[in-house]
Amino acid sequence: MEGRHPSESLAILTDFVLTGETNSLNNLFGGELLARMDRAAGIAAGRHSRRVVVTASVNHVAFNRAIPLGSVVTVEAKVSRAFTSSMEVYIDVWVEDRQSGDKTKANEAIYTFVAVNETGNPVPVPPIIPETDLEKERYDAALRRKQLSLVLAGKMKPNDATELKALFV
Amino acid sequence: MEGRHPSESLAILTDFVLTGETNSLNNLFGGELLARMDRAAGIAAGRHSRRVVVTASVNHVAFNRAIPLGSVVTVEAKVSRAFTSSMEVYIDVWVEDRQSGDKTKANEAIYTFVAVNETGNPVPVPPIIPETDLEKERYDAALRRKQLSLVLAGKMKPNDATELKALFV
Amino acid sequence: MEGRHPSESLAILTDFVLTGETNSLNNLFGGELLARMDRAAGIAAGRHSRRVVVTASVNHVAFNRAIPLGSVVTVEAKVSRAFTSSMEVYIDVWVEDRQSGDKTKANEAIYTFVAVNETGNPVPVPPIIPETDLEKERYDAALRRKQLSLVLAGKMKPNDATELKALFV
Amino acid sequence: MEGRHPSESLAILTDFVLTGETNSLNNLFGGELLARMDRAAGIAAGRHSRRVVVTASVNHVAFNRAIPLGSVVTVEAKVSRAFTSSMEVYIDVWVEDRQSGDKTKANEAIYTFVAVNETGNPVPVPPIIPETDLEKERYDAALRRKQLSLVLAGKMKPNDATELKALFV
Amino acid sequence: MEGRHPSESLAILTDFVLTGETNSLNNLFGGELLARMDRAAGIAAGRHSRRVVVTASVNHVAFNRAIPLGSVVTVEAKVSRAFTSSMEVYIDVWVEDRQSGDKTKANEAIYTFVAVNETGNPVPVPPIIPETDLEKERYDAALRRKQLSLVLAGKMKPNDATELKALFV
Amino acid sequence: MEGRHPSESLAILTDFVLTGETNSLNNLFGGELLARMDRAAGIAAGRHSRRVVVTASVNHVAFNRAIPLGSVVTVEAKVSRAFTSSMEVYIDVWVEDRQSGDKTKANEAIYTFVAVNETGNPVPVPPIIPETDLEKERYDAALRRKQLSLVLAGKMKPNDATELKALFV
Repeated sequence: MEGRHPSESLAILTDFVLTGETNSLNNLFGGELLARMDRAAGIAAGRHSRRVVVTASVNHVAFNRAIPLGSVVTVEAKVSRAFTSSMEVYIDVWVEDRQSGDKTKANEAIYTFVAVNETGNPVPVPPIIPETDLEKERYDAALRRKQLSLVLAGKMKPNDATELKALFV
Repeated sequence: MEGRHPSESLAILTDFVLTGETNSLNNLFGGELLARMDRAAGIAAGRHSRRVVVTASVNHVAFNRAIPLGSVVTVEAKVSRAFTSSMEVYIDVWVEDRQSGDKTKANEAIYTFVAVNETGNPVPVPPIIPETDLEKERYDAALRRKQLSLVLAGKMKPNDATELKALFV
Repeated sequence: MEGRHPSESLAILTDFVLTGETNSLNNLFGGELLARMDRAAGIAAGRHSRRVVVTASVNHVAFNRAIPLGSVVTVEAKVSRAFTSSMEVYIDVWVEDRQSGDKTKANEAIYTFVAVNETGNPVPVPPIIPETDLEKERYDAALRRKQLSLVLAGKMKPNDATELKALFV
Repeated sequence: MEGRHPSESLAILTDFVLTGETNSLNNLFGGELLARMDRAAGIAAGRHSRRVVVTASVNHVAFNRAIPLGSVVTVEAKVSRAFTSSMEVYIDVWVEDRQSGDKTKANEAIYTFVAVNETGNPVPVPPIIPETDLEKERYDAALRRKQLSLVLAGKMKPNDATELKALFV
Repeated sequence: MEGRHPSESLAILTDFVLTGETNSLNNLFGGELLARMDRAAGIAAGRHSRRVVVTASVNHVAFNRAIPLGSVVTVEAKVSRAFTSSMEVYIDVWVEDRQSGDKTKANEAIYTFVAVNETGNPVPVPPIIPETDLEKERYDAALRRKQLSLVLAGKMKPNDATELKALFV
Repeated sequence: MEGRHPSESLAILTDFVLTGETNSLNNLFGGELLARMDRAAGIAAGRHSRRVVVTASVNHVAFNRAIPLGSVVTVEAKVSRAFTSSMEVYIDVWVEDRQSGDKTKANEAIYTFVAVNETGNPVPVPPIIPETDLEKERYDAALRRKQLSLVLAGKMKPNDATELKALFV
C-alpha cells in the first residue's frame, strides 16, 4: 500500500463551549473534550485508512489549561504513525481569545485507532510518510509509545523494548 | 477600523453524522445541519469582529444533496462582506466519500450576524477586503442580497435598490 | 388530488428555552431555533402531504428579538402553498411573558419541503386552498418567492419572473 | 384571585420521535416521554399561575401503546384543578398515522406542580373554573386523587377521605 | 420459574446534575429525573427477567426535595414484586453533600415494567423473594398498589380489592 | 488529614447504550465511554476529597471489547492513590449479557484528578489506605505510573524514576 502524509488526514473540529458542557467552575468538562477529540481523531484515522475505524486506546491526555464557557475550541487531529492495522493519532487542542484573536495550546492527546472491515476484523492500513520536523519527531516517538504500551500490557518483555530501554540505561 | 481578509475568519467544523441526528430516511436532519452551520458561521463572525455576535438572519439555504448517516461533513464558514455592524457569512458544506476520499459539495448557505456589546447593542465591525475571485464575487453579490432583503422587508423602495433593479430592467 | 386548507397542517411546538440551548448572552442560540422550526415545519408538511418530507431550502429567517433563557417559545407552522411536489411552510414564533401572559412575535421564517417516496424521489402533493386573509396573502407571496429563488439560482430568466418583475418596473 | 379556565393554560408540544430517543424495539423510551410531558405540563402550570413552577409529583401515567420511531407525537397539557398553591395538570398524548392522518390516544398522565416565588417557597394560585364536560369530570376526580395521595402518604386518615371512601363503602 | 431476590436486580446510576438539566431555579428538572429513574428501573427489571422490558406505568413519584446544579445524584432501583409478566420497581433517589459526604433521601418512585418477547408480547417473569424487612414491606404494599390501579382503571370492582378495602372499612 | 479507603469513594454508573451513542458498527462510541468514565471518576475523586475536582489527565485507556447498542454498561470508579492534591482513579467497565446475566470486563482506564478551591487552585487531599489485594496492587503501580508520566513530560530524570527503572534494569 502506498504511504500517505499526515497532512492528508488532518481533521479540524472548531466549535463553541456550550452551557451544557461545563462543570461547576464553568469550564469545559474533561469528558466532553475527550469525546470531541475522539470524533476528530476518528475522522483523521478514517481519512488515512479509508476504512471504518474504532478507538483502540487513549494513550495519554493531559489537561493543562481550563477552557471556559463560551470559548472557541479548535481540535486538530492528524495520523502520526501507522502500524499494520492500527494508527496513532496526535491531537492538538487550541483555545482562542476573542478580543486579541490569539490562539493558545490547551492540551495534547494521543489516541490509537484500528481499521476494521464490515465484520469488525482488523485490516491493513497505508504507512505514514512524515514531512515536517514536528511530524518526524512524533513519528519516532510513536514507536517508543507503542513499546511502552506493550510492556505495560505484559505483551512485550522490557528487555525487547529497545527504543524505550534506551531512555533508562 | 482596519479591514480584514475573509481567510482570517475561516472556521472549519468537521464532524460525523451521528445516529441521533438522522431522519427516517437515515439522512442528516435539515435542522441539525442548520444548527451546525449557525455555530460555524458564528465563530467566523466572532473571529472577524472579535466581539460577541448574534444571528440576525438566514438569507438562503438550499439542501441539494442528502447526507447519509455516518458521513463526514465539513462546514466551512467565512465572512463574505461587512456592513456597519452586520456581517454576511458564506458557508460551504462538503461531504466526503470514505472509500475514494472525494469531497462533494452538499450545500451552501448565507447567514447574517450582528456584533454586539455586553448590553446587546450593535457595535461597528471592520470592513472585508476580498482576495480570491470567489471571495470578490461573493462580496459583490452580498450587496444585492442586502438590497433584496431590505426591499422584501419594506425598508427600501425597489427603485432605490440599484444593484438589484439592474437584474430586471 | 383534493386540496387542503393551511389549518389542516398546523403544527404547534411549545417548549422552554433550556440552559443548554443559550449563548453567552443567555439568549436562545439561532441554530437551536432553526432546528426547532425545521421540526415543526416538517410535521406541517408531513400532515399536508401524508408523505415522508425532506427540507429543501430555508428561504428567509429574520431573528428580530432575542429570546432569553427560561422563556416559553411557541413555534407555529402551516403550509402556505404547494407546488407539484414541494411545499412552502410559513412559521411564526411567539415568546410569552410569564407575569402578564402576553405573547409577542419573536420571528418569522419560511422553509420549503419536498415530499418523497421510499427511494427518496419527489411525489406530487395536494394543492393548498387558503381561507383567512393572512393565508391568502402568504399564498400569493409564495409565488413571488418561488420565482425569486429560481432567478437567484439561474433557473429562470428575470424577464419571465412576471410576479417579481412587477415589483421593480 | 380570579379563576381561570383550563383552556387558558393549554400547552401543545408536537414533535417527532427521533432516533436517539428509542429503545431496542425502536419505540419511544418511557423516560423520554415522561420528560416531554413534564415540560408541557410545566408550561401549562406556568400559564395558569404566571409563576415559576416546580414538579411536585407524578400521580399516574399509563403507557398503553408503543410509539414507534418517526412518529409525530402531540402532548396536550391543561390544568385540571388548583389547590392553594398546587395545580393538578392532566396530560393527553396523541400519535398520528402519517398516511391516514388519524390521531390515536397513546396515553394519559397526571402531574402535580407547585407555584413558587424566587426563594422557592409556595405561593397561592388562581382557582380553576372547568367548562366542558370532560374538564368538569377531571376537576371532580382531582379531589379524590388528592385525598388518595394524602392517605397513601399518611397525611390524611382514610376515614376523613370522604370522596375516596365513597368508592369502597 | 425459580424466584429471585430483589438485591439481584439492584441497579445503581450515580451521576452529576449537569447545567443542561436544570430549570430557572438552578435545580434538576423533574422530567430529567423521571428519565434517569426510568433507565435505572428498566435495567433492574431487565436484570430480574433477563428479557426486553418496556415501561408500563409510573404509579407514584413525589419530588420532596430540590436537587441543585452540581449535585451528585444516586438512583437505586430494585424489583419489589413480580406479577405474571409485570414487575413493580421501587426507586430510591439520594443526593449527597460534597463537604460532609452525607447522603439525603431526595425522593422515591414506583414504576411498573412488562417483559416482552421480540414481537412485543408479554412473557412470564420469575417471582420475587423478598429478604430484608424493607423489601418485605414493599412487597406487601405492591399488591395494594396493584389493586388500586386496577380499581382506578375500572378493571376491578372496589369490593374485590380486598387488600385495599381493608384500609377504608 | 486522615486517610480514607478506596471503597469509600466507589462510584457506580450503570446505564444503557442508547441509539444516539453508537457508531456505524452499532457499537458504543469510544468518546461517549470516555465521557461516562470521566463523570464516574470525577464523582469518586469528589467523594474522596470532598472538594471540587477537575480532570488532570487520562493516563491509559484500552478498548478491548466492542459494546453493542442496547447493552447495560456498568462503570465502577475508585480512587487508587492520592498524591498531595492529585488523585489517581482506577475505572473498571463491565458489560452484561441480558439472557445469562453474566458480566464481562469490557475495559479498564486510569484518570487523574486534582482537587481545587473556588479559585481553581490545588488543595491537599487525604491519603489512600488500600484494603484488598487488588487495591494494594493498584496503589503500588500508581507510583510507577506517576513516575512514568513525569519522565515522559520531561519533569523527572529517568534515573530518578526508581520504581520505573527497576522494570528495565
